[in-house]
Amino acid sequence: MNEEQKIIKTFFYPLANNKEALELKNDAAILLKKKKMIITTDMMIEGVHFDKSYDPEILARKLLRINLSDLAAMGASPYGYTLNLAIPKKNIGNWLKKFTYGLKLDGQNFGVKLFGGDLSVSSKIFLSATVLGIVGKTFHKNSKVSEGSEIYVGGNIGDAAIGLKILNKKIINSDKNHFLNKLFLPEPQINLGKSLNGIADFCTDISDGLINELEVVASNSKLKANIFESEIPLSVETLKILKKSKFKKKLLELILTGGEDYKLLFSIRKNKKKYLKNKSNKIKKIGFFSKGSGVEIYDINKKKINFKKKGFCHF
Amino acid sequence: MNEEQKIIKTFFYPLANNKEALELKNDAAILLKKKKMIITTDMMIEGVHFDKSYDPEILARKLLRINLSDLAAMGASPYGYTLNLAIPKKNIGNWLKKFTYGLKLDGQNFGVKLFGGDLSVSSKIFLSATVLGIVGKTFHKNSKVSEGSEIYVGGNIGDAAIGLKILNKKIINSDKNHFLNKLFLPEPQINLGKSLNGIADFCTDISDGLINELEVVASNSKLKANIFESEIPLSVETLKILKKSKFKKKLLELILTGGEDYKLLFSIRKNKKKYLKNKSNKIKKIGFFSKGSGVEIYDINKKKINFKKKGFCHF
Repeated sequence: MNEEQKIIKTFFYPLANNKEALELKNDAAILLKKKKMIITTDMMIEGVHFDKSYDPEILARKLLRINLSDLAAMGASPYGYTLNLAIPKKNIGNWLKKFTYGLKLDGQNFGVKLFGGDLSVSSKIFLSATVLGIVGKTFHKNSKVSEGSEIYVGGNIGDAAIGLKILNKKIINSDKNHFLNKLFLPEPQINLGKSLNGIADFCTDISDGLINELEVVASNSKLKANIFESEIPLSVETLKILKKSKFKKKLLELILTGGEDYKLLFSIRKNKKKYLKNKSNKIKKIGFFSKGSGVEIYDINKKKINFKKKGFCHF
Repeated sequence: MNEEQKIIKTFFYPLANNKEALELKNDAAILLKKKKMIITTDMMIEGVHFDKSYDPEILARKLLRINLSDLAAMGASPYGYTLNLAIPKKNIGNWLKKFTYGLKLDGQNFGVKLFGGDLSVSSKIFLSATVLGIVGKTFHKNSKVSEGSEIYVGGNIGDAAIGLKILNKKIINSDKNHFLNKLFLPEPQINLGKSLNGIADFCTDISDGLINELEVVASNSKLKANIFESEIPLSVETLKILKKSKFKKKLLELILTGGEDYKLLFSIRKNKKKYLKNKSNKIKKIGFFSKGSGVEIYDINKKKINFKKKGFCHF
């Protein structure tokens, strides 16, 4: 048994205790669920999405969660995932111990199983996961938004973006742990996504910033998204910062464009509103679609707010 | 539309002209085939698997082919793939034009469609693909090798390993193009893999070297693999080098352990041999399994050959 096989046996075999993985002894995994499935993939790269200071356990959990958030956005239930892992040789045992502990923890939390993957050395850490989800008869297809549809978000916006500023020492705040936790461990809204099947016009997760995501939907639907600053749900901690800040507009821009919220963003036609069950009180209506194009943000006096930036873009 | 969305629209949308991809407008793709599926994933990293000199078209085609080779090893037919792509910003349009041309070409050659993916910037190129295949009632599960089973390979061994030495200027040879072509564009043996369903004991593709792959199977089956040097199929070009070489044993070690052959390696019980259809004459019996452990290689005088290295290992 060579080193690579030992690594697989020690660290990954215990995560792959499912029939699909075929004991990780084959060139592929077999999908046994005879149900309609969806597939999504996301990557995280050292120097782009995170730096060397990140705890490997957090990296593993975040990698799963950002992919699971895509399942949530489709109204799907978690099934399994494949993993691509490229890491430096140095201190590899310790790193993998923490990383695979993170995979185990959130694998159990969200009911998602390791089916297989690929392993390599690399000077910089590269992670990618491809996740499979099960859908029923209906799932979210982003092509049905209509004029008058109301826009909702699944929870507080901006905490992760503030968390990133705190991590990079651009903001100093006593609620540091709250914000870092939101940045490190976003909550994929699986149950909310499923409950919206057949009800929502469109549904996506906010990864690249609220305004950016709305721009995409508005453009695809040839409509204008109108949202109200005063309706955006914010955490108590964010409200505290906003109250004290001398740069309110800049902070608001960060909140609405910073990204990594991983809350669901969706719209519902007025006649379907009655089916919306808001058990958690986290869902918040923030605006509506109208004729036109682009995204318009209104302040408390219904005046338009213009930001320089729209959202996160790699290019 | 931001730069990322423009890139997706210009370069990837034309590749995703299938119902599964949902116009690349959603957080995931939907798998519409109601058949038993397998999933496999492989990555290629700059500085590990290739260097900056590689043509992006070749990178794209090789990425698809090494994944398709895993489908072949499972006896599956190609269905679709998701792509993770992290590339430097510089000269991106030109790079993507060549890369997506490669995806288009081999997507058509092998009947595999783009379902979705993730895009990022990165100082070094990182590529990964996750490929889905369709299987029938039977597919290859590597757990049924028995004593006496005969070992076969699907074609010539060693060309890609010699190609890599030529690329790195460690070997100079007038048949350079032959060897580089085998290194750059391995042929996934899809049809052979499918034809072996229900016939082969085990089946895998030779990615990390013939001996290494056999070691794994021998270890999993608690048997010894015996192979004969004189039976290993070699290309005319390899035979020419071998004939002239002063370091025959070292060259043979390279051929048997160098990897990246992507030929199928499989075994068949004697009583199933009659079902083996060797239309192409490329299939070659190279040995058999017996009681014991490990891999034994015999020379033309049936003497054991010992190599220092067993195969490629990242760690």
